[in-house]
Amino acid sequence: MRVEIWGDIACPWCYIGKARFAAGLAAFEHRDQVEVVHRSFELDPRAPKGETGPVLPMLAAKYGLTLDQARQAEQRVAAAAASEGLDYLADGRDHGNTFDLHRLLHFAREHGRQERLLDLAYRANFAEERSVYDRERQLELAVQAGLDREQAAAVLDDESAYAGAVRADEREAAELGATGVPFYVLDRRLGVSGGQPAEVFTDALRQAWAARTPLTVLAGDPAADACGPDGCAVPQP
Amino acid sequence: MRVEIWGDIACPWCYIGKARFAAGLAAFEHRDQVEVVHRSFELDPRAPKGETGPVLPMLAAKYGLTLDQARQAEQRVAAAAASEGLDYLADGRDHGNTFDLHRLLHFAREHGRQERLLDLAYRANFAEERSVYDRERQLELAVQAGLDREQAAAVLDDESAYAGAVRADEREAAELGATGVPFYVLDRRLGVSGGQPAEVFTDALRQAWAARTPLTVLAGDPAADACGPDGCAVPQP
Repeated sequence: MRVEIWGDIACPWCYIGKARFAAGLAAFEHRDQVEVVHRSFELDPRAPKGETGPVLPMLAAKYGLTLDQARQAEQRVAAAAASEGLDYLADGRDHGNTFDLHRLLHFAREHGRQERLLDLAYRANFAEERSVYDRERQLELAVQAGLDREQAAAVLDDESAYAGAVRADEREAAELGATGVPFYVLDRRLGVSGGQPAEVFTDALRQAWAARTPLTVLAGDPAADACGPDGCAVPQP
Repeated sequence: MRVEIWGDIACPWCYIGKARFAAGLAAFEHRDQVEVVHRSFELDPRAPKGETGPVLPMLAAKYGLTLDQARQAEQRVAAAAASEGLDYLADGRDHGNTFDLHRLLHFAREHGRQERLLDLAYRANFAEERSVYDRERQLELAVQAGLDREQAAAVLDDESAYAGAVRADEREAAELGATGVPFYVLDRRLGVSGGQPAEVFTDALRQAWAARTPLTVLAGDPAADACGPDGCAVPQP
């Protein structure tokens, strides 16, 4: 079975939902037959590139809160993170454009390092003081994830690298009806929206597993060009 | 959309079918939204490891043919390959156990090099004199595919590396009802058996594309922990 997870580095519920999904998956009987792929979704695609700012004033302006109220809201999110065993600085992170991070995650996927880079990027954004929007920081994370520094730098410096892959993910999210993240898609059959409790994920995995249907195999040429345990079809003279 | 292709390096119709599928895919309108994954299938899992032999006597014994008849049969397969623009030595290759090659292909997949290694392995087996069952040859192919030689050697030398992944692919093939290869699975919905003509693949891709169904999104907590363009859910005090 295959689970695709749309999310954004800037999304606290994606960070927290990742731990909840992991717990839900751990309780699923067929967990060793589940493949997880992470897909791109930008919460704020219009955020200007190269500009960052502290998150609290942004949240205050967005929700019409005082700075203190924004901080308290973040503290409540931090408490939700803590209950999943995750560190979360309620007054630390900044916000910015995540497109480059998504491109880097696609590069990491091609090298079998997506999961590690994503974990590192979430942690860097939500639990560490340094900005995750800084190129040097992104390269450090890439190296920590096991990627080649030169190659990762080349990806970051070429704005077109993996840009199509990010856009394709975002188009697919829209086609699937996702308006927010995290958004989980199981075997392209069942969707789960939001960082739900672990049990919801376990139930969804079981439901999608039970819903697997036998393939419709196209009726082809009966003397199809194929090989089996008893040998291969051989064209007649 | 996602296409999984089960095949074996020792399978001529997988080699030829790969070119036919590529042509069918090239004619498909949404080809840039198709992801292809190659999966493992051993035609002869009981072939003793480390032993190889020329293919013609094996074919002759298997089908009750004279050596000349076996050569003629291979020449007809070679003609089918030629009509797809593929080289094929009718009297060159040997046969052996392909398990290590499958393990190596899984390693290559993790590094984004599966497609290249598979193309090189097919070509090495069917169009080149040297044996593809030779460890040194396999390492050369890995390097040619862009993989790290030391890492590839470590994979080949550790019999357990990716063995589980190969077995899992084979279990899935059986669950999906595949008794031979090549076997194509489109979105886990539609199967195509055998190296069919390109048009069959184009039709199958169109059919699977049209059959995509809207997701069932699980009704979760309406105040789900999620973020959207308008912001993130915030736990109430």
